[in-house]
Amino acid sequence: MQTLNLDLAERSYPIVVGAGALARADLIAGALAQPRAVIVSNETVAPLHLAKLKAPLTAAGIDTLDVILPDGEEYKDWPTLNRIFDALLANRCERSTTLIALGGGVIGDITGFAAACYQRGVPFIQAPTTLLAQVDSSVGGKTAINHPLGKNMIGAFHQPQLVLADTDTLATLPLREFRSGLAEVIKYGLIRDPAFLAWLEANTDALLAREPQALAEAIVRSCRNKAEVVAADERESGERALLNLGHTFGHAIETGCGYGVWLHGEAIAVGMLMAAELSRRLGWIDSAAVERIEALFVRCGLPVQGPALGVERYLELMAHDKKVQDGKLRLVLLRSAGEAVLSSAAPAADIAAAIAARCRAE
Amino acid sequence: MQTLNLDLAERSYPIVVGAGALARADLIAGALAQPRAVIVSNETVAPLHLAKLKAPLTAAGIDTLDVILPDGEEYKDWPTLNRIFDALLANRCERSTTLIALGGGVIGDITGFAAACYQRGVPFIQAPTTLLAQVDSSVGGKTAINHPLGKNMIGAFHQPQLVLADTDTLATLPLREFRSGLAEVIKYGLIRDPAFLAWLEANTDALLAREPQALAEAIVRSCRNKAEVVAADERESGERALLNLGHTFGHAIETGCGYGVWLHGEAIAVGMLMAAELSRRLGWIDSAAVERIEALFVRCGLPVQGPALGVERYLELMAHDKKVQDGKLRLVLLRSAGEAVLSSAAPAADIAAAIAARCRAE
Ligand SMILES: NC(=O)c1ccc[n+]([C@@H]2O[C@H](COP(=O)([O-])OP(=O)(O)OC[C@H]3O[C@@H](n4cnc5c(N)ncnc54)[C@H](O)[C@@H]3O)[C@@H](O)[C@H]2O)c1
Ligand SMILES: NC(=O)c1ccc[n+]([C@@H]2O[C@H](COP(=O)([O-])OP(=O)(O)OC[C@H]3O[C@@H](n4cnc5c(N)ncnc54)[C@H](O)[C@@H]3O)[C@@H](O)[C@H]2O)c1
Ligand SMILES: [Zn+2]
Ligand SMILES: [Zn+2]
Repeated sequence: MQTLNLDLAERSYPIVVGAGALARADLIAGALAQPRAVIVSNETVAPLHLAKLKAPLTAAGIDTLDVILPDGEEYKDWPTLNRIFDALLANRCERSTTLIALGGGVIGDITGFAAACYQRGVPFIQAPTTLLAQVDSSVGGKTAINHPLGKNMIGAFHQPQLVLADTDTLATLPLREFRSGLAEVIKYGLIRDPAFLAWLEANTDALLAREPQALAEAIVRSCRNKAEVVAADERESGERALLNLGHTFGHAIETGCGYGVWLHGEAIAVGMLMAAELSRRLGWIDSAAVERIEALFVRCGLPVQGPALGVERYLELMAHDKKVQDGKLRLVLLRSAGEAVLSSAAPAADIAAAIAARCRAE
Repeated sequence: MQTLNLDLAERSYPIVVGAGALARADLIAGALAQPRAVIVSNETVAPLHLAKLKAPLTAAGIDTLDVILPDGEEYKDWPTLNRIFDALLANRCERSTTLIALGGGVIGDITGFAAACYQRGVPFIQAPTTLLAQVDSSVGGKTAINHPLGKNMIGAFHQPQLVLADTDTLATLPLREFRSGLAEVIKYGLIRDPAFLAWLEANTDALLAREPQALAEAIVRSCRNKAEVVAADERESGERALLNLGHTFGHAIETGCGYGVWLHGEAIAVGMLMAAELSRRLGWIDSAAVERIEALFVRCGLPVQGPALGVERYLELMAHDKKVQDGKLRLVLLRSAGEAVLSSAAPAADIAAAIAARCRAE
């Protein structure tokens, strides 16, 4: 088990990574304000992993209540959020009741937002069970639900008390979800950690075989990158925006095809290639760098071409993205494979051309 | 025009009180991050006061969009909140778009919560138009909507950039609403400002006549009290809870009778008398003190007896209140008429007796 710390003064918290982390009732108990917790999970994850979390808590004298939600991004919405509030209120949960999110990014985001809003804020713990959630969404305090007009439009910054990333849970993760998580792992290499990028290229096979050592290493190095960025810029006023490499393009794909058709990691893999292609057009990186990134995605089984939405539709969807400031689209681009920058320098024609180069023809 | 400051380090903001404050487009413009604002108001307030706010902004080159909601506490709910989000998204409002709440506490609370959640937080300005909102809800950053199982159960702490309390707007306020606001004004005297309590007793007639000087004085002294308390305890971990004098009882009345039957100030007036009666039973204040408070409420036209819900129902509703910690009810009680304390010392039998003494028989 390895522990790293997200350093945010009085909001600092530990990130515990390793096999069996879910069973660490001692760590959870230490983070609770009262011997009671509400576990929020979904219909897929609960049968597979809930007992591993719940039994040790019960044995430790902690009273737990489960809220099991339906599974899917389409349930990251207000009616489902309200089911959490209903359960909390029906069970008279108080300001000191802690919520525990057991699941992927959807469960983490909706549970975190419920914790942010219930009685104006209660504590919560992240117990991520997808690779994506372990390396990205569970760390950093961004919480949200979707709105019919846009993903993650309603949310809050609310930091967890503790993150427990149990690598054992990844054994049951569907291959496509696992690959999708790898896209976020690779992202850290691309934006700020060239040594990690090289390590990933050298260890792709071990990762795809889900070798425990390799997994733990990839998760810890990803979380360390994310923790450093968030510690420097909790509210995304600067550096944190670099974590959105590929996301403005990727969100357009996710929204344009309807939630759930493309996985988040698949969409941002293509989005990162669009950003790379745009960076190449600006003369910042060469074709070899773009091909190197593409090759890694291909080996990971990730898509390297977007859906045929039409360039106009991509641009329209991107204009709805939060990364718009004063009407101008700010994009994360690459200075090299290992260094990202935030820029509004790209001419509209180049943005359109980069999209066209990386999506299927209509 | 008088200005006081709520001192919260980087979240500090000015509270501007006086006739014509709504027209201070200069102050608003200084608080905006872009020349654009979304005004949220309701169907009652907009026809009366929107133009006074909007015309000077338009003249100052600030683009405004109005979102006019239906009027009533029953609309402080998710579907109505969603109408704000719909408008913001349909108009592609960005992270730097400022919301302005023009109305009473309902509009202030729902708009503040919309600002807290939209894209994980945008700036907002409070332009309160009821006495209650000017002396209480617009100051301090508490925002919320109601849930069918409890008032203000879903919310956030989100401080405004600026509060503009225009005393002119109170001229159109229905008498019952005005009186209700006086209950919150008197509350400040009771919990921490005996000199202000004496001033209120000496100036009741001038206040009821809505004399501009008296009004401004009462609002400024109220806001100063609230600002001091909030500055010392933004997140309500201690002293701020004293602002809830009468509120646990009062919320039971509001919920028990259905939102809107009792006004908030009416309910907390009775609640404050229940707290006073309970304090008397604990031997902390004498009957004369209780009668003094009752006399002031009577002169202000406020109720001094609660509805006949039955003591059991009061207790049940109070157990749902946020002021429960580890299953024990913490109440704000009076050490004297001018000093409140938070206490869980009251025996259940005394709580029941205090309620029974101050509510109509079933
Ligand atoms: N808050 C943030 O900072 C942040 C960052 C990135 C993504 N996100 C959000 O995260 C979400 C995507 O997260 P995700 O990719 O984890 O999706 P997800 O939560 O939908 O999980 C993917 C699927 O895997 C299932 N699953 C989860 N754990 C499993 C396990 N151990 N075994 C078998 N099946 C399992 C889930 O039930 C689901 O069907 C999106 O809503 C995205 O917006 C948030
Ligand atoms: N956030 C906080 O700290 C805090 C504190 C106290 C109360 N509150 C909340 O505030 C709400 C009560 O606020 P309220 O008493 O202002 O109620 P309100 O907002 O419902 O206003 C009362 C009525 O007066 C009307 N009105 C408002 N201004 C007017 C004007 N100038 N002329 C004529 N009519 C006018 C309104 O349309 C409404 O019909 C409750 O929801 C309560 O929970 C919040
Ligand atoms: Zn992502
Ligand atoms: Zn109140």
